[in-house]
Amino acid sequence: VGDASRGRGGTGLVTLLTDFGTADYFVAAMKGVILARDRGIVLVDVTHEIPPQDVRAAAFTLLATHAEFPRGTVHLVVVDPGVGSPRLAIAAEAGGRFFVGPDNGVLGWALQRAKGARVFRLDEERWLRSAPSATFHGRDLFAPVAAALAAGTPLERLGTPLSDPVLLEPPFAIAGEHGDWIGTILHVDRFGNCVTSITRDTLPPSARGPQPRLRLRVGEREIRTLRRYFAEETAGSDGGVFAIWGSAGFLELACFRASAAARLGVGPGERVVASSRP
Amino acid sequence: VGDASRGRGGTGLVTLLTDFGTADYFVAAMKGVILARDRGIVLVDVTHEIPPQDVRAAAFTLLATHAEFPRGTVHLVVVDPGVGSPRLAIAAEAGGRFFVGPDNGVLGWALQRAKGARVFRLDEERWLRSAPSATFHGRDLFAPVAAALAAGTPLERLGTPLSDPVLLEPPFAIAGEHGDWIGTILHVDRFGNCVTSITRDTLPPSARGPQPRLRLRVGEREIRTLRRYFAEETAGSDGGVFAIWGSAGFLELACFRASAAARLGVGPGERVVASSRP
Amino acid sequence: VGDASRGRGGTGLVTLLTDFGTADYFVAAMKGVILARDRGIVLVDVTHEIPPQDVRAAAFTLLATHAEFPRGTVHLVVVDPGVGSPRLAIAAEAGGRFFVGPDNGVLGWALQRAKGARVFRLDEERWLRSAPSATFHGRDLFAPVAAALAAGTPLERLGTPLSDPVLLEPPFAIAGEHGDWIGTILHVDRFGNCVTSITRDTLPPSARGPQPRLRLRVGEREIRTLRRYFAEETAGSDGGVFAIWGSAGFLELACFRASAAARLGVGPGERVVASSRP
Repeated sequence: VGDASRGRGGTGLVTLLTDFGTADYFVAAMKGVILARDRGIVLVDVTHEIPPQDVRAAAFTLLATHAEFPRGTVHLVVVDPGVGSPRLAIAAEAGGRFFVGPDNGVLGWALQRAKGARVFRLDEERWLRSAPSATFHGRDLFAPVAAALAAGTPLERLGTPLSDPVLLEPPFAIAGEHGDWIGTILHVDRFGNCVTSITRDTLPPSARGPQPRLRLRVGEREIRTLRRYFAEETAGSDGGVFAIWGSAGFLELACFRASAAARLGVGPGERVVASSRP
Repeated sequence: VGDASRGRGGTGLVTLLTDFGTADYFVAAMKGVILARDRGIVLVDVTHEIPPQDVRAAAFTLLATHAEFPRGTVHLVVVDPGVGSPRLAIAAEAGGRFFVGPDNGVLGWALQRAKGARVFRLDEERWLRSAPSATFHGRDLFAPVAAALAAGTPLERLGTPLSDPVLLEPPFAIAGEHGDWIGTILHVDRFGNCVTSITRDTLPPSARGPQPRLRLRVGEREIRTLRRYFAEETAGSDGGVFAIWGSAGFLELACFRASAAARLGVGPGERVVASSRP
Repeated sequence: VGDASRGRGGTGLVTLLTDFGTADYFVAAMKGVILARDRGIVLVDVTHEIPPQDVRAAAFTLLATHAEFPRGTVHLVVVDPGVGSPRLAIAAEAGGRFFVGPDNGVLGWALQRAKGARVFRLDEERWLRSAPSATFHGRDLFAPVAAALAAGTPLERLGTPLSDPVLLEPPFAIAGEHGDWIGTILHVDRFGNCVTSITRDTLPPSARGPQPRLRLRVGEREIRTLRRYFAEETAGSDGGVFAIWGSAGFLELACFRASAAARLGVGPGERVVASSRP
């Protein structure tokens, strides 16, 4: 691989995001495969502590981190409950970053948010190494493809275009009736904070200013308090639950030193409707 | 950034020390920010498993590791119970290494030990990225500053000199009366070993030789046994607690296969007085 | 160190495999020492979560990962129950990769499998840093040696040849009578899967084809089912235990969603005999 193709395809930076844990040999084997292809590739662990087979948790983590990395970065994601089944394997480009993983929605939120994604179905016959295992596509398929992208192989040479990759529900709120914005809870973090799909640019203008008049509906509950800091003193009486702009750019439902998810009785996928209140 | 300024400011090596854990997206987001600034920067995790908001534990870990790294290394430390409060953010240089973090003492032991530290208050207005979060200064302030230092930005351009950074008690024993040396317990490790601030060069000469005549007082207890190895057979009768030179260069109070901290009923901050016995 | 010697001795890639955990300062101190020698060395963590002092678990992890890394890689392994005792410290080369660690068998399986290993006893007097600790040879002896190898120091300059390093039982099956192959359980993973030392090339030809006629004996038990996938439907009636080719290249004894080790009542070191059945 010459410098010219490297310039086209990647920067030689690969991030790894899996549910493999860090006690076993799995992650190291993937890294060995990548460095054996090109030892100049820089590797960054995003996390390997995604709960086993939790596609949504991995999709959220990828969504929250991928755009911090420079253009050309290859994001390798292996959370793959369907390994061994006929699920597809894909590689994609969106917003100048590359993505490699199973076609189960785990790449979906990042691709949907960046927009204009180009998705290719991997030609597994070509990429699987000669004596692959039935159970470790992370090492035998996805790592070699990520290394190839990082070393400059053009995306379109990895396989054939795929027009209908598996997607989760959209990671951004969509316009509803009466000026409402309809989102979902994307993720509940370890503290019980509920990360919604509502972003600043999908909110009514009256809800963006210094004195927002925001109303959120989650199931039967209504939240009217928007805090700037977790510990901010506010007059809210929404059972202690308030909204706050989280560090991933989404509106979160939170509770000071308590679990908002437990207090609201909600989880990922729950519908959240934002509107401006009178 | 040219080679000249790189030579002045850093070696392009950044270590990360936080209480963020490794399951969430926080550490990866910081790394993305640094690599987006300069993908040639080498990143090394010290640990992200500091107990939440335990400033002293992070200060000790930094003290025990920073000098192993080459000169020019930038040590990025984010254990920040006061994020959102008016605590300052600082960058510093001492002993040829750079340090970035909140001004809450977490950098203090490393700075005090290296001596001759130059400390600057960060000009937050300038460094905070355009749409910062209220809760994630690690990504939005400290990581960009660490990347700038690693890429060669001179320390003095980061902000204004600060003469009175927040400090913890000194990380070295000080001379007392009658030839005593007065130290404290800096850290209790996971095995219950108590790392004191007593170093070889702050001990009376009679306590340094092959047959040291050392006496340590901790509260009501007195320890007279100094072992060379954990399992060494010694005649001591100090309730099983002995002193030993630990790998971080400090005298430790230890107990073979038991917790010295529990046996002594002591914790971080406890006063330890060393003297030579007759 | 010039380019010429670098080309001879290593590629500047060091992997780390220990039982130190990731919460303490130990791993970072080792990395600092290596980067202080040559900050161009690339570091890769294999794992630091080997159960404390479990030499066999580390030996297996090294066996399962070392050959994925490019030739010239230095594998640094510190699982060292005997630190402080007169056990030797060694460095070795096998299959184009380098190995550094204590002489307690932890390197043995990788060396035995690669064959043709050259083993040297480290000249500790020369490599131990000036003020070493009695308890941290990872930082004070093994890390400097690994850095030297990665920076190009020829292996034979590290010490003197050693003809009888400590070895565990062989990591491959050996031919028995009547066409049997005799192996052992090398490792029981976190799911209770039993990794045996039986590889494809140590099996009778009749057991390798698409319809293998394999019989495994473990203690009083006999296993006749070989699955291609964990969830594959098979007619076996071996108490739910089946054989499967694992991703490390070994035959494993497994049980779908249960612990084969518990079901069989076996652990590491247990003898496994493979034969073809009529």
